[in-house]
Amino acid sequence: MNYKAVLQYDGTRYRGWQTQGNTDNTIQGKLETLLTKMAGEPVEVNGSGRTDAGVHAAGQVISFRCKTKESPEEICRYMNEYLPEDIAVLTVKEAAPRFHARLNAVRKTYVYRIWNAPVRNVFRRRFTTWIQKPLDLDAMEQAATLLCGTHDYRAFCSLKKFKKSTVRTIEKIEIGKMGQEIRISYTGDGFLYHMVRILTGTLVEVGLGLRKPEEMTEILEGQERTKAGRLMPPEGLTLESVEY
Amino acid sequence: MNYKAVLQYDGTRYRGWQTQGNTDNTIQGKLETLLTKMAGEPVEVNGSGRTDAGVHAAGQVISFRCKTKESPEEICRYMNEYLPEDIAVLTVKEAAPRFHARLNAVRKTYVYRIWNAPVRNVFRRRFTTWIQKPLDLDAMEQAATLLCGTHDYRAFCSLKKFKKSTVRTIEKIEIGKMGQEIRISYTGDGFLYHMVRILTGTLVEVGLGLRKPEEMTEILEGQERTKAGRLMPPEGLTLESVEY
Repeated sequence: MNYKAVLQYDGTRYRGWQTQGNTDNTIQGKLETLLTKMAGEPVEVNGSGRTDAGVHAAGQVISFRCKTKESPEEICRYMNEYLPEDIAVLTVKEAAPRFHARLNAVRKTYVYRIWNAPVRNVFRRRFTTWIQKPLDLDAMEQAATLLCGTHDYRAFCSLKKFKKSTVRTIEKIEIGKMGQEIRISYTGDGFLYHMVRILTGTLVEVGLGLRKPEEMTEILEGQERTKAGRLMPPEGLTLESVEY
Repeated sequence: MNYKAVLQYDGTRYRGWQTQGNTDNTIQGKLETLLTKMAGEPVEVNGSGRTDAGVHAAGQVISFRCKTKESPEEICRYMNEYLPEDIAVLTVKEAAPRFHARLNAVRKTYVYRIWNAPVRNVFRRRFTTWIQKPLDLDAMEQAATLLCGTHDYRAFCSLKKFKKSTVRTIEKIEIGKMGQEIRISYTGDGFLYHMVRILTGTLVEVGLGLRKPEEMTEILEGQERTKAGRLMPPEGLTLESVEY
């Protein structure tokens, strides 16, 4: 049977999504170890995409095949009973035989959170990046508009060599503020390595007045990583949802 | 000079507010060590009240006397630079010579947060207590009304012997819900040892249908700890604010 599950994790203490061996500290590793134990045979877990070390997920989607007499609800309960307190399974459902969490994903939303205040926030420190100086959200929104659309985003990617296309479509970038927390959400058909964190770093430089919104077009066209802004730290980033 | 400061802390990894020696892992201990280093002579820090191990504060107030040439703003910056990431100072101000954070406090607000959903929340796990079964908020509000006023609250205190008065006044108890998070806030002139956590445990038992709201009056009058509900875990509790 093929299954689809949705999960949440606080990525703070993990080395990211992707397994790097048998006993490593990754989300995929934790899930595969647990499901292999449950099924009594090796189970491979496919995620909708990798998240880097320290990045969180509110709606990561996975698929896995296994033979078990347990119902999807029972699998969900079993997983939540044995997973560590920073990983939780929201739902487990039977999936079509050929469903694959990564290959079938059509749209993803990532959210980057910034605590924008003179004093850091002890309660939100694991899920936000602290920026002391006030950010100009209007300028950031102007820049964000220029970053949307279908473009070659290689200027916003940490890789140096590209085997596959670096063209992606960002449908929308939304910037909101609640109290002193700024939330930048990115929805698109896919994102390159470090792309959301470099886009955010570039928008932050606009918000601080270090760059003008108009520069975004230049950076996209220049296709050089050095022209874009800095890579933001992982803790502010959450994979919010994946659509199929 | 006498100073008043407001601070926040994530109490998860501390043994509570009150120092228990020189090198212990308490909030008071961390602050006294730091200020003593800054001032070059022993500094004693008085908090508005103790918080237990694992309990948080969004607006704990402290007072301390010390001789220093630094301005209050400089003391604040110094503290935030050297305090661990789970303690932050919001403000430092000069206070009247006789101001004392505990003795002069006239009103305090504590908030207890419950994550009320079938699946636990990995992002809120440090600041909420998870209750799977749905809580009846209407019944809890009826019970809360009966718990307000001026009463002898010894039934809601973990101590067995009482040297001082156990009469307190609770001005209001407010119950709110945002999404799946329930927030119960208690405002009063003072709270006994474990009082907020036992009040919450009793309200939760009402919310689960295990007790009737009318029982509250009986429990107050009976003055016996065994008649009240269970002690809730510390992680859901935050000292929200203190008034003078």
